[in-house]
Amino acid sequence: MAKIGPFEQLQAELATKMVAVNTLIRTRMVSKHAPRIPEVTAHLVEAGGKRLRPLLTLAAAKMCGYQGEDDVKLAAIVEFIHTATLLHDDVVDESDQRRGRPTANLLWDNKSSVLVGDYLFSRSFQLMVETGNLRVLDILANASAVIAEGEVLQLSVAQDLSTSEGTYFQVIRGKTAALFSAATEVGAVIAQANQTNVDALRDYGDALGISFQIVDDLLDYGGASAAMGKNTGDDFRERKLTLPVILAVAKASDKERAFWVRTIEKGDQNDDDLARAMEILHKHACLDITKNKALGWAKTAESALGPLPESALKSTLAELAGYVVSRIV
Amino acid sequence: MAKIGPFEQLQAELATKMVAVNTLIRTRMVSKHAPRIPEVTAHLVEAGGKRLRPLLTLAAAKMCGYQGEDDVKLAAIVEFIHTATLLHDDVVDESDQRRGRPTANLLWDNKSSVLVGDYLFSRSFQLMVETGNLRVLDILANASAVIAEGEVLQLSVAQDLSTSEGTYFQVIRGKTAALFSAATEVGAVIAQANQTNVDALRDYGDALGISFQIVDDLLDYGGASAAMGKNTGDDFRERKLTLPVILAVAKASDKERAFWVRTIEKGDQNDDDLARAMEILHKHACLDITKNKALGWAKTAESALGPLPESALKSTLAELAGYVVSRIV
Repeated sequence: MAKIGPFEQLQAELATKMVAVNTLIRTRMVSKHAPRIPEVTAHLVEAGGKRLRPLLTLAAAKMCGYQGEDDVKLAAIVEFIHTATLLHDDVVDESDQRRGRPTANLLWDNKSSVLVGDYLFSRSFQLMVETGNLRVLDILANASAVIAEGEVLQLSVAQDLSTSEGTYFQVIRGKTAALFSAATEVGAVIAQANQTNVDALRDYGDALGISFQIVDDLLDYGGASAAMGKNTGDDFRERKLTLPVILAVAKASDKERAFWVRTIEKGDQNDDDLARAMEILHKHACLDITKNKALGWAKTAESALGPLPESALKSTLAELAGYVVSRIV
Repeated sequence: MAKIGPFEQLQAELATKMVAVNTLIRTRMVSKHAPRIPEVTAHLVEAGGKRLRPLLTLAAAKMCGYQGEDDVKLAAIVEFIHTATLLHDDVVDESDQRRGRPTANLLWDNKSSVLVGDYLFSRSFQLMVETGNLRVLDILANASAVIAEGEVLQLSVAQDLSTSEGTYFQVIRGKTAALFSAATEVGAVIAQANQTNVDALRDYGDALGISFQIVDDLLDYGGASAAMGKNTGDDFRERKLTLPVILAVAKASDKERAFWVRTIEKGDQNDDDLARAMEILHKHACLDITKNKALGWAKTAESALGPLPESALKSTLAELAGYVVSRIV
């Protein structure tokens, strides 16, 4: 039998619980008073998202010996928060594709995306209260604030060529890693794990999330191999300062700097500019450097698991980060 | 000395607490990581909003004998939620004026309104967790979901001439009354009031909120006296089915119905149409009927206070609803 990858292993080990999570998501998405809501959310929730975040919550709880049913609620909560932020991101980015389908804001409109996002966030909040666990509520409330701060920070520095690598990490720690680390942390907390294990799983989620977002930003330029996919160049066209471009700006010749000023700062782009941007990114090895940073964070994630007792799930999570980076980019 | 109105009395009786509320709002609005946030929110939070919702929370807590400091947190929470929904409404309504100033989405943009709204909502959520009171969390989580449902329902029925009065009440109960009733209910809950008093204050908030929103919708057509203000007709131009128009559609002649179909359903409006709409509203006494419904709900609010022990604050709240309706419209 061919060896399956760590993500498929994770799905297999948590398959029964994930059935319950998916049922709960479908049940709680429904609104008696606003039947339009599931129409908007089904599009996202059923669209074959990987459900990585809920899997992380279930894995963390199981690794810490959790026996109850609240892990299912927590897993649904993190997926709801994730879906709400996607809906609000769709408004924000004026993006027209998400997971290969038209985004909700084109199918419906900006208004629905904002309000249905608010609804999902509220539903997640109701589920949290149902757990009756104030520590879980505290972690998720803080994560929500950090996510919003990261998104606002990203907006504030958009199109700003002076954005540093430090600011970039602050943005992705907020907009992506905060939910990954909350997902793993609450799993450990609900299992009443000791503080060392709670910290280990939180740090794992943080590093995995950072690695994951770096990969995402790298893929937007086709990955280290720069295979041009159908969404290649979205960040370039939206003039986002992601890691590849930040690295390129730092090493830019005068002529290259003028190119970035025109295309990113002033937004004056023509059809040849993406190809020219890729050329510059390659010249300075920015995509390779970016990939190596993603691999570094994957390694950090793996190391963070150190204190946890050995188990099949621990091995799976340890493999997961590096596997995602090396396989995709 | 001239008798001051009940709103000013409320402000006077709760002045010390409100100073603490305003300080807390300013402190918690700040974001270390995203300095742009207070710029966006200050615009709304400092813009001379009446702070009616936090006053209701403080009043409810005080009437039930509350001695602690968590009422200040709860009051800040309801103002944050209110501000967050205003920010998201500004995106939704494409409105260009709010409290006589340019809205945040014109000063900044839709993106900031969405994300800063999310931030404020998250901050309110953190404050709730700080109270450590699960019953309060439950009430506010439910209110948040009901608010979002009301907003989505409003969107679903926009421009739909078949919208019934029942649907209208469902919308305003969600988008407005849910936060009023949560504001008064949590004040009573934090004071550990008995269930009769908790219910009384919740029902008061619900009826006050309904009355308040009807007045708001009436004012959009200039009030019962139809004095044309600078924002008169916003709802008409945005093709919203509010109570005055719902009543007019129900009584419309064939010719009038054709007018509503063209202007509201099809959105084909010219400069004379608002005046023509007002004419039809007057012909069928729709503005007077709307005002009487607002007064009816004000009466319901007053009656709801019945079970509570007599106090200066109780008298003030009892006067408040009718006073707001009769004074403004």
